[in-house]
Amino acid sequence: MKIEAKDIVDAIKAEVTAGVEAHKARGVEPTIRVIVATDDAAVLSYVRSKVKQAGNLGIAMEVVEFGPDKDQAAFEALIRASNDDASIHGVMIELPVRDGLDHDRVLSILDPKKDVDGLTTLNQGLIQQGREAEAICPATPQACIRLAETVGGLSGERVAVVGRGPTVGKPLAAMLINRSATVTVAHSRTTDLAATIAPCRFVFAATGRPGLLNAGNVTADHVILDAGIAYKDDKLVGDFDAEAAEGVAAYTPVPGGVGRVTSAIIFANLLKCMRLQGHP
Amino acid sequence: MKIEAKDIVDAIKAEVTAGVEAHKARGVEPTIRVIVATDDAAVLSYVRSKVKQAGNLGIAMEVVEFGPDKDQAAFEALIRASNDDASIHGVMIELPVRDGLDHDRVLSILDPKKDVDGLTTLNQGLIQQGREAEAICPATPQACIRLAETVGGLSGERVAVVGRGPTVGKPLAAMLINRSATVTVAHSRTTDLAATIAPCRFVFAATGRPGLLNAGNVTADHVILDAGIAYKDDKLVGDFDAEAAEGVAAYTPVPGGVGRVTSAIIFANLLKCMRLQGHP
Repeated sequence: MKIEAKDIVDAIKAEVTAGVEAHKARGVEPTIRVIVATDDAAVLSYVRSKVKQAGNLGIAMEVVEFGPDKDQAAFEALIRASNDDASIHGVMIELPVRDGLDHDRVLSILDPKKDVDGLTTLNQGLIQQGREAEAICPATPQACIRLAETVGGLSGERVAVVGRGPTVGKPLAAMLINRSATVTVAHSRTTDLAATIAPCRFVFAATGRPGLLNAGNVTADHVILDAGIAYKDDKLVGDFDAEAAEGVAAYTPVPGGVGRVTSAIIFANLLKCMRLQGHP
Repeated sequence: MKIEAKDIVDAIKAEVTAGVEAHKARGVEPTIRVIVATDDAAVLSYVRSKVKQAGNLGIAMEVVEFGPDKDQAAFEALIRASNDDASIHGVMIELPVRDGLDHDRVLSILDPKKDVDGLTTLNQGLIQQGREAEAICPATPQACIRLAETVGGLSGERVAVVGRGPTVGKPLAAMLINRSATVTVAHSRTTDLAATIAPCRFVFAATGRPGLLNAGNVTADHVILDAGIAYKDDKLVGDFDAEAAEGVAAYTPVPGGVGRVTSAIIFANLLKCMRLQGHP
């Protein structure tokens, strides 16, 4: 069974549109600053698509191109200026940033209340402490959980997170523990992936290695949430081999699954940022 | 096999003593402020024992009794004053704090560089982001890992963490993922503990439920790291039923295992705090 993203996306977008209208009625224009410190064509194309989606929801997105002539001090100054600018409600730093810029340091400087991507050290710590209500949680893990919950509850379920990256795998594992799942985190050093994921009902994949989950290691009981993103023969693909789709209980397609929900949740995160900043 | 704590404790103490002497030779007296906001007799006795241990290592420990007449604002003011006081190098807040005081809020205020216990939101976030070198890590998870590594390396091993509390289970799971173990986190909602831990070589227990690990769920291959603390018939006991000791490959005793190493690591954490504060 293919897990459908449409209903979730529609619900989130309706909620965001209503929230944006309420802010505008009070004279506040919800605004995200996107900092692009790369020449990577894929990133630039992704940013254009986000600007368009934001526009459709009535959200202003200001793109700051941070050129190769600028250094770490200027990077940090830009973040601090964004923290202090009350007309900027959310800040996104597109990844990867240019060589020579220290993204980790910036994640300790950005105001966690403007951290639309939920990647600052403080937001990661709040998630880890089980204080999600006070945190901005990264959009991709939220999307994975929303999609999984259309199939069934997570409390008491055995689940696997394959991948331990800072943007998806690690915060997702913490968020699943917060939801009382029994969580196993697997990764490149895991010696027997098939045996590791076998007892799990839900398998969340976020490695960016196409076909890592395939007919050889999935079972008919598995529900696959695929947050993998990679290009294979110029086609966007996930971690789960779509040819194994008949062999599992349910799965999210790539494209059209986790990524689609993620795109909507980013804007819901902006509205939460605004609440945490004291906007009604 | 009983896993011995003595060599690890001796090594840490020797390192701490040398570090303390070096600071004193430069005219700096390493000092921890302990804030006791409880009347719990067990906590008060634990604090007295820490003061004595600190004294043996040449470390000054200033106990601040925070009485029931004082409120949350005073609690936060005390933390901020401690942050600003250059003669205080580490701050410990004994848990649990009195009803009516918000410990979580304080964990977002305490300077992470003075957070000897490694429980501030920022330190938890740094651990989660794999940035342990910049963080103060909680002592009990560090002790568990040091003891486990006397038996064998953790990279690529299957390990279980039983318990998901904020001081041990959660940070320990993150630290084990950082060390490339394949980590399963089990807890009170886990439905079949025996099956969940069966494939794991190392089992870390931190629930405070005596006998949770017992002859019925451990195997001859298990290495048990027992961070549980509870009293049973007035005796200090861990999560692992000592009567099952013959049935596992190795285990840490309670008392004398994880707790003993933890007591030493707290003071090593103070020296790391001082390095992060810029003391040479």
